[in-house]
Amino acid sequence: MPTISIAAPAIQPFQPPRRTLMGPGPSDVPQRILDAMARPTIGHLDPAFVGMMEELKALLRYAFQTGNALTFPVSGPGSVGMETCFVNLVEPGDKVIVCSNGVFGGRMLENVRRAGGRPVAVEDAWGEPVDPGKVEDAFRAHPDAKALAFVHAETSTGAQSDAKALAAIARRHGALSIMDCVTSLGGTPVLVDAWGIDAAYSGSQKCLSCTPGLSPVSFNDRAVERVRARKTPVQSWFMDLNLVLGYWSGEGRRTYHHTAPINPLYGLHEALVMLAEEGIEHAWARHRASHEALKAGLERLGIGFVVAEAARLPQLNAIRIPEGADDAALRTRLLQEFNLEIGAGLGVLAGRIWRIGLMGHSARPQNVDHCLRALEAVLRP
Amino acid sequence: MPTISIAAPAIQPFQPPRRTLMGPGPSDVPQRILDAMARPTIGHLDPAFVGMMEELKALLRYAFQTGNALTFPVSGPGSVGMETCFVNLVEPGDKVIVCSNGVFGGRMLENVRRAGGRPVAVEDAWGEPVDPGKVEDAFRAHPDAKALAFVHAETSTGAQSDAKALAAIARRHGALSIMDCVTSLGGTPVLVDAWGIDAAYSGSQKCLSCTPGLSPVSFNDRAVERVRARKTPVQSWFMDLNLVLGYWSGEGRRTYHHTAPINPLYGLHEALVMLAEEGIEHAWARHRASHEALKAGLERLGIGFVVAEAARLPQLNAIRIPEGADDAALRTRLLQEFNLEIGAGLGVLAGRIWRIGLMGHSARPQNVDHCLRALEAVLRP
Repeated sequence: MPTISIAAPAIQPFQPPRRTLMGPGPSDVPQRILDAMARPTIGHLDPAFVGMMEELKALLRYAFQTGNALTFPVSGPGSVGMETCFVNLVEPGDKVIVCSNGVFGGRMLENVRRAGGRPVAVEDAWGEPVDPGKVEDAFRAHPDAKALAFVHAETSTGAQSDAKALAAIARRHGALSIMDCVTSLGGTPVLVDAWGIDAAYSGSQKCLSCTPGLSPVSFNDRAVERVRARKTPVQSWFMDLNLVLGYWSGEGRRTYHHTAPINPLYGLHEALVMLAEEGIEHAWARHRASHEALKAGLERLGIGFVVAEAARLPQLNAIRIPEGADDAALRTRLLQEFNLEIGAGLGVLAGRIWRIGLMGHSARPQNVDHCLRALEAVLRP
Repeated sequence: MPTISIAAPAIQPFQPPRRTLMGPGPSDVPQRILDAMARPTIGHLDPAFVGMMEELKALLRYAFQTGNALTFPVSGPGSVGMETCFVNLVEPGDKVIVCSNGVFGGRMLENVRRAGGRPVAVEDAWGEPVDPGKVEDAFRAHPDAKALAFVHAETSTGAQSDAKALAAIARRHGALSIMDCVTSLGGTPVLVDAWGIDAAYSGSQKCLSCTPGLSPVSFNDRAVERVRARKTPVQSWFMDLNLVLGYWSGEGRRTYHHTAPINPLYGLHEALVMLAEEGIEHAWARHRASHEALKAGLERLGIGFVVAEAARLPQLNAIRIPEGADDAALRTRLLQEFNLEIGAGLGVLAGRIWRIGLMGHSARPQNVDHCLRALEAVLRP
């Protein structure tokens, strides 16, 4: 046996504090979901696991409101779901119109570039929804654009865009639509089929209230055809849908691609069973009601919203930090004194806004009350 | 509220069966690790989480036996750890010598290709270790090769190669070494610093006995320099180490890159605390002892090994399916009657071998006994 040169570090098991999670995600995870994750691990080719996967796909189709056969959770965080869409649907040289009105639109632009595509940016101010008129103009100026990518619910600003209108424009111009619905899925209506969305990706840790690390995606037949008709191989082995399909498809022999993250998938399955039990329309209504309650309380505190009412996401409330308040110091006090996490601003909004998430299990009256009480305590000492 | 078109499926919470996992991974996950995963979720920028991340890095340095600052768990399965190595360390046009003696060597070749590199394959038969002489010859024929990639422990065949010798050849020829130690880390000695390995990746679900979905990686300064000196951007946004570094590095302000899979990381932390408690040399010895016990029992049953004794992995036992035995039918019986999972053969070895894993928590006398009893029952009815 060889001698070791690095000694064992004396580190104790980790006992996390119990927080109330009202930032941009993760949101509070119900004990039922945590318990599901602690069930015995089984193999990823076990018939029992394969049956669970089929259920997961059906549950995800419900969440996305789609009949798409290719609907499954990517084994990675939302950013991997995003990259899976772009590396499969964009070929070198392809022109892609990308709507950018926050951090995640910017990330999409970067994804198109790295996939060898030529992004055409349609810019809107942070806090504004995407302007469909500008998208229409962009297609007129670039009739050869192969796809349109947009963020339905911008986590960095709290603005919601009109996904249905944007997808319709793309369709009219013969382009595929790629929708980021990381923060909307399960919180506000996401109707993949009714809106004619060709590809969509989301995350597990927002309105589905599961732990982070999985990215539900859905592709319709037009999108699958685009992948199958590629002239160049997908640059990523891990994300290549041609290979993943053999693993996630229900047909025939299931081929080994990668080892699925078994226990996190138990958690996502449980989260989606809970969504089906509640009924997705009721989940939407609950998010809306939590937002109304929070809004009323914030108005009493004299705190204003970043986004105009019509485009405001109920589940991600971007608010202006009151004049004179110390951003970082107050967030630290909320965490230390109230075990409450809220989100900081990103990019151009850093230091100017806070982001209060009311997502999934966090969209409850007790969370709203706790948050308002804590904000009042630190802002009006 | 819009009307929904897809009704809620009537699906119950998933209750997995309790299996004994003795395939190629996942291995049995101790209850302590499952319990850790069910602890309350906190935010990925929470100071408590950041402290846990620092501990995780120290624990991984112990497992890899390295002082490398850039040692962290990639937020994805082992295949993402593999791809992270190749997309960062290979630039378009780079020649990479890839040792291929099983499924995972083949996957490395594909990774080099998709990163735009020019792979030079060094082939050895499945079941054989990599021949250092052939690698030496390959470097002589391709003195401009920028890297050497090899699998330390081939999960598809159960063969272990001489990582130290291979890394020394690469170093002598001015090339970086990239080592797959998915199946060896924690089971047989992996000495990243002593062997002079430049980049290594592993998986959480093998000898570390955690659930699948995380890929520990380690890069030394030579590898980091190679990434920093790239002339072309890394093709993957998610895997770009230049961006990931800002999130995982201990220095300065931690920048947001992606939402880390919080609860699975609790599990990996616990798994590594358990490894440190046991002592990694004792873990190696335990894997060896389990293998010896299994070997003795298999010999009594007249079952032979695929790999010659000198190159045989104790934790992944590739055995020849006895003449006349029905591969799939017998594995189904093992699963149904004994709740025992063993692995099938892959590729050219499909239908000809079984793979019995003795990894992590599965490397215990009771697992060996259960497996031998079950095999005897189905083979000698």
